[in-house]
Amino acid sequence: MEIKSAIREYEVLLKDDTEFVKSLFGHENTEYVVDKNVYELYTPLFECVPKERLLLIEATEEKKTIDTALEICERISELSAKRNAVLVSVGGGIIQDITGFVANIMYRGIKWIFVSTTLLAACDSCIGSKTSLNYKGFKNLLGTFYPPEQIYIAPVFFKTLSERDYKSGLGEVVKFNIMSGQKGLENIENNIEKLLSRDENTIKEFVESSLEFKKRFIEIDEFDKGERIKLNFAHTFGHAIEVVSRYEIPHGTAVAIGMIIADDISYKRGYVNSDVKVRSERKLLEIIDIDIDLLEAPESQYMAAIKKDKKQTDDSLTAVLIVSYGEVGELKVVHDVTQDEIFASLEYFKQLYKVGKK
Amino acid sequence: MEIKSAIREYEVLLKDDTEFVKSLFGHENTEYVVDKNVYELYTPLFECVPKERLLLIEATEEKKTIDTALEICERISELSAKRNAVLVSVGGGIIQDITGFVANIMYRGIKWIFVSTTLLAACDSCIGSKTSLNYKGFKNLLGTFYPPEQIYIAPVFFKTLSERDYKSGLGEVVKFNIMSGQKGLENIENNIEKLLSRDENTIKEFVESSLEFKKRFIEIDEFDKGERIKLNFAHTFGHAIEVVSRYEIPHGTAVAIGMIIADDISYKRGYVNSDVKVRSERKLLEIIDIDIDLLEAPESQYMAAIKKDKKQTDDSLTAVLIVSYGEVGELKVVHDVTQDEIFASLEYFKQLYKVGKK
Repeated sequence: MEIKSAIREYEVLLKDDTEFVKSLFGHENTEYVVDKNVYELYTPLFECVPKERLLLIEATEEKKTIDTALEICERISELSAKRNAVLVSVGGGIIQDITGFVANIMYRGIKWIFVSTTLLAACDSCIGSKTSLNYKGFKNLLGTFYPPEQIYIAPVFFKTLSERDYKSGLGEVVKFNIMSGQKGLENIENNIEKLLSRDENTIKEFVESSLEFKKRFIEIDEFDKGERIKLNFAHTFGHAIEVVSRYEIPHGTAVAIGMIIADDISYKRGYVNSDVKVRSERKLLEIIDIDIDLLEAPESQYMAAIKKDKKQTDDSLTAVLIVSYGEVGELKVVHDVTQDEIFASLEYFKQLYKVGKK
Repeated sequence: MEIKSAIREYEVLLKDDTEFVKSLFGHENTEYVVDKNVYELYTPLFECVPKERLLLIEATEEKKTIDTALEICERISELSAKRNAVLVSVGGGIIQDITGFVANIMYRGIKWIFVSTTLLAACDSCIGSKTSLNYKGFKNLLGTFYPPEQIYIAPVFFKTLSERDYKSGLGEVVKFNIMSGQKGLENIENNIEKLLSRDENTIKEFVESSLEFKKRFIEIDEFDKGERIKLNFAHTFGHAIEVVSRYEIPHGTAVAIGMIIADDISYKRGYVNSDVKVRSERKLLEIIDIDIDLLEAPESQYMAAIKKDKKQTDDSLTAVLIVSYGEVGELKVVHDVTQDEIFASLEYFKQLYKVGKK
């Protein structure tokens, strides 16, 4: 799959096994950054990487800082190549966020190859050029737009994901399908079992269709000024849930919960009918598996988290909602969401979850 | 003047006085970063900037660091606006380099307005999107491509530049004209007196024509992959001279010296005739005013500086030379420059300067 970008065109390559990884290794003037956990699970794959060029990073939000980025910059500065140095990174969204930032700011941009080992990164973040770092307690305060030159995805890596991380990835897969309209919703209804059992071919199909769906938005609006913002469907609520749970609830799962809240608001506003809402909820509940107590927090905490989000450009509350649903789902950036609506629908989700999980 | 960029179009506005500056000030959700020296010279201009939103920075290479950049980021994070925060910066190339980097990495890019108060920034660096920071002794190791939305230039600011800084700016003005061919060279010959006396109208004309000349290269090749590299005419030698002199010789002046070296190499290779070479030298010598002892350093120091430059992509020595000269100057990236050529022409410059300044 080829993706157009203002910076350069780049490509996504889906692979059936992990052998391709070896061909990326052992090159000169290349720095390798690998998720520590991935390295431990797949050590033999990394045999031909010179030890002094291999940096293992724990993929935690705490490590997604400018200090980690600068540590990598310094290692790259030791290579004899300058502008034609290469960075290869292997991991999920956190590794992507950090190494993309590094590749962008090093010599005003060096070649970067990214191997996505999580479903969440593979179906969503790996395309679209976003890089980010946390700064002084603000999530993704720093960041740029810089795509890898090549993205490799091998669903076989997803076999070793924890149930928590895998289901988080499914959150975004289900999101893209629900957003896309009736056919997408049906697609999820027909395949959720196979997805949950990690059937490789099914995963591959859904990763591809998710990226194809996202591609349309980012090719029109790479820099997130208009059309692309619609991809943040349910994210206002999702982000707040992540923050309030102190990231115990992972991103994709928080988005899945955010979708139930968003759809409930859309339903109450008369934007979608109960059929769409109920069918979506049913599938979303299958992929949400949380300690519901993590959502117990004062409303002020939720509101503070929502207001910190960089999508909030002024005092009104902005969210992306489905405003009509047919062949295609129609999404709109809405600026008049009220606190009451949010907390009524959050309460609705909690009750639904408690009943559903009994 | 409108400049096309992959990131967005932007504009350059030339102004006859400094009054326009006031209209940029006092807005909400805006952080102001101003060269300390400029602030001291023009304090009344800055009266309507709220003190707590004004950061004064000493424009030195030592301040062009990630720490300074992060200090500005933190101040911007305190504004209630997020993505629609605005950064206004006032100063020369160093202020531009730092604040451009900040505007790029903050919330993945915020609005940035730049007021260029030096000739060097006004005639050259203000367009072309380059931002940069020094890192651990490496000049411009970190950087990105990110243009301001608006660039303001008021030549009246140049009246207060030191002779050293003003002549450094002239280095790039002369470079663009010599590069452009016979007519550019004549233009310099006819106007060097007026330029040296800081005649405002003449400066304005030459700033505009310099930017028009540069615009053609950066619009074809913003990301410095091919055509744009030609703008680095004489810079391989210029950069080395800057480093060896520990930046006592300022950028534009080092480039002017670099041009004499480059033209001497071109002449010895038979690329240009003696008329072009001698006429160029004569004008360049008028704007070069240095302590010649600053160039006394072992050859190994020069070579180390050249090899550190990010343009050097492998073991051969790369430089941009004029390869033929007529209506237009034809420039070429040459990869076979020898150490002997460089040091013979450096020696030639030293003798020429000593004789010329007697």
